Amino acid sequence: MNNQDLYERIKKKKSFLCVGLDIDIDKIPNFLRKNNDPIFSFAKSIIDATSKYCIAYKPNIAFYETYGVDGWKALEKIIDYIKSEYPDIFTIADAKRCDIENTSRRYAKAYFERLNFDSITISPYMGKDSVEPFLKYKDKHTILLALTSNSGAKDFQFNQCNGKKLYQQVIESSIKWQNSQQLMYVVGANHTDLISSIRRIVPDNFLLIPGIGAQGGNLKQISQAVMNDKCGIIVNASRSIIYSSNGKDFEKTASISAKKIKDEMESLLNDKKII
Amino acid sequence: MNNQDLYERIKKKKSFLCVGLDIDIDKIPNFLRKNNDPIFSFAKSIIDATSKYCIAYKPNIAFYETYGVDGWKALEKIIDYIKSEYPDIFTIADAKRCDIENTSRRYAKAYFERLNFDSITISPYMGKDSVEPFLKYKDKHTILLALTSNSGAKDFQFNQCNGKKLYQQVIESSIKWQNSQQLMYVVGANHTDLISSIRRIVPDNFLLIPGIGAQGGNLKQISQAVMNDKCGIIVNASRSIIYSSNGKDFEKTASISAKKIKDEMESLLNDKKII
Repeated sequence: MNNQDLYERIKKKKSFLCVGLDIDIDKIPNFLRKNNDPIFSFAKSIIDATSKYCIAYKPNIAFYETYGVDGWKALEKIIDYIKSEYPDIFTIADAKRCDIENTSRRYAKAYFERLNFDSITISPYMGKDSVEPFLKYKDKHTILLALTSNSGAKDFQFNQCNGKKLYQQVIESSIKWQNSQQLMYVVGANHTDLISSIRRIVPDNFLLIPGIGAQGGNLKQISQAVMNDKCGIIVNASRSIIYSSNGKDFEKTASISAKKIKDEMESLLNDKKII
Repeated sequence: MNNQDLYERIKKKKSFLCVGLDIDIDKIPNFLRKNNDPIFSFAKSIIDATSKYCIAYKPNIAFYETYGVDGWKALEKIIDYIKSEYPDIFTIADAKRCDIENTSRRYAKAYFERLNFDSITISPYMGKDSVEPFLKYKDKHTILLALTSNSGAKDFQFNQCNGKKLYQQVIESSIKWQNSQQLMYVVGANHTDLISSIRRIVPDNFLLIPGIGAQGGNLKQISQAVMNDKCGIIVNASRSIIYSSNGKDFEKTASISAKKIKDEMESLLNDKKII
């Protein structure tokens, strides 16, 4: 999938919403916990309830690793389910991996070949050769952490070097790497004041924006600050959608929560004359 | 396990060797591939053959993820095997994880509770709140990437900010975090010229040093540059030990390769009057 394909899907669905599948068994409805495979059952229900309103799903790998082999089985089933039932939906492995070239090749193989994700999030700390094994897959997207939404972002990402902050340098360096049109960047929704300057460095690349919903970021502000004429952003919400109820009505409330965000996105896409 | 425990084990075994369990089915002896569980069978043989000569094992999680559910099953079996047969051995999940606090808690649970590793490697890009969920486990070690052995280390880790390079700032900031005596730092064996300055910042913390063997680092040089009076280093070798032969004699050659490094380490510990 390339940027143009993503753009077409955004226009068709009038949405740039990604639903984060951060599945915690302690938070899913009680009656589902008795199920043989509670993680997959919950994910399937959430996917069926929200797929009309989103263009992407983002399983957060930490949540699956917590459940060991059962978690991995569920993850494989979830990605297979999305690929077979909703083949138009973009899939993001939120893994934030990072390692030497020889090891990154293995992570790329795990997520792009075995699990067949369309993209993966990557930490840039180890530099070019740690990221290039992912970039070699020309039909996949590699999503670099740039400016994250957490409080620790200020610890190192704002370090100034030759007049540039670390996150700026990460972006500027990465655009010189091979196949860099397939790069996306993670920028937290709380960085409304800085995101326009990031857009100037990468006018055409997609930004993956977490931090609306439970983390408090404002969809309208961030979208107006950074959308390009092909949208160019994917905005993620996890907890505020998937845990909007833990009762029997969880599918309905998840659907309503996703639709509400999608409606706001449709209006923003209209304002920008994208649809 | 605390630093004193590790020190006692180093003295007892006259070694500070960590064997990296980067298991690639394409590289293990042919006859083992026909086995029902080739990853575990190979790992068990390597562990039995080398445990006399090392103080730590470090499964590289990427290699297990490549095999999906089978890889995770094998990983769980390997860590259980080490814990039950060689309880004195320190275990390192080479995972290089990194995420917001809410997610890091899940990774900590996965590796410290479910898998019961003694330690995990972590990327510092997302700062304090992404690392503290690991540091909360007072009997575990958290191993921060500082100055890595790969070529991409030069891309961002040497960025100068207020007269300090990024890797130095990572180390200096982290020692102010809670329970920081349980922090270790990854420093590549190729950075012989810089490692003494790192030791001055963290005189008592352990350094995990990859990059000898297949990656070409020099054990004697690096050890002499950075050992403290309680050793204070764990040096890893992976490919040069575990793939020293792919024939029927692989256990014997792995044992010989590990013993050779251990003998050099014993001599270095003697020179330093640690044993």
